[in-house]
Amino acid sequence: MEPRTDNGLRARDLDKRESGNLIGSDKVEGTNVYNHANEHIGTIERVMIDKPSGKVAYAVMSFGGFLGIGDDHYPVPWSKLVYDESIGGYRTDLSKAELEDAPRFRSEDDYNWEDRQASMDVYNHYGIPPYWI
Amino acid sequence: MEPRTDNGLRARDLDKRESGNLIGSDKVEGTNVYNHANEHIGTIERVMIDKPSGKVAYAVMSFGGFLGIGDDHYPVPWSKLVYDESIGGYRTDLSKAELEDAPRFRSEDDYNWEDRQASMDVYNHYGIPPYWI
Repeated sequence: MEPRTDNGLRARDLDKRESGNLIGSDKVEGTNVYNHANEHIGTIERVMIDKPSGKVAYAVMSFGGFLGIGDDHYPVPWSKLVYDESIGGYRTDLSKAELEDAPRFRSEDDYNWEDRQASMDVYNHYGIPPYWI
Repeated sequence: MEPRTDNGLRARDLDKRESGNLIGSDKVEGTNVYNHANEHIGTIERVMIDKPSGKVAYAVMSFGGFLGIGDDHYPVPWSKLVYDESIGGYRTDLSKAELEDAPRFRSEDDYNWEDRQASMDVYNHYGIPPYWI
């Protein structure tokens, strides 16, 4: 019989892409996002890094067809992402109403990442101070 | 005859993964690193993100066989990476001596990302204040 081990902890120890407070960018990409009803609602596509400061400006989430929203891309403040080991993904407290109103872009060409007002709109929507403050 | 365009600028406009100050994590991964003699010396594997602060703690660079160093993994402060559009990659001013002495790990298991002293050693080596300051 195998000795009893904490498999969750062991898996983390062996995962080169996550360790305590640190997580690899390649682990964030493709991670699923769930709502509080444990429904899979989308996926993280990438994080956008502010080059001068080295801070994550946004995570870009796609919500393919969730709630009839279509395959849009949502820039979301990093601090809105709370990883939940029990589901192996991010859980979000975003409500349907919040998502319906949230800044998004259908194609990347629609969105001007450099537009400070557009960035401000994102952070205002989620009620979080922007990354450059 | 095609109208004359600034192809470099156009390519950037269409690249959803980079825009001015922002760059997508998936664009950073796999980007080549060159020295000042334009020699390809390695590749960026990923960035490690500090979850609480949303800051890039390190880029992890591999220098496969460069200078006989072997395929080691080097945690490097983000601010050491300077993107050079003319070569489509990062140029580093790391000297052979600096690399030979630099903190590295041969397998991910060798490195304790959470060890504050190990992190401090990395930043001290490169003469840069650590990301948590």
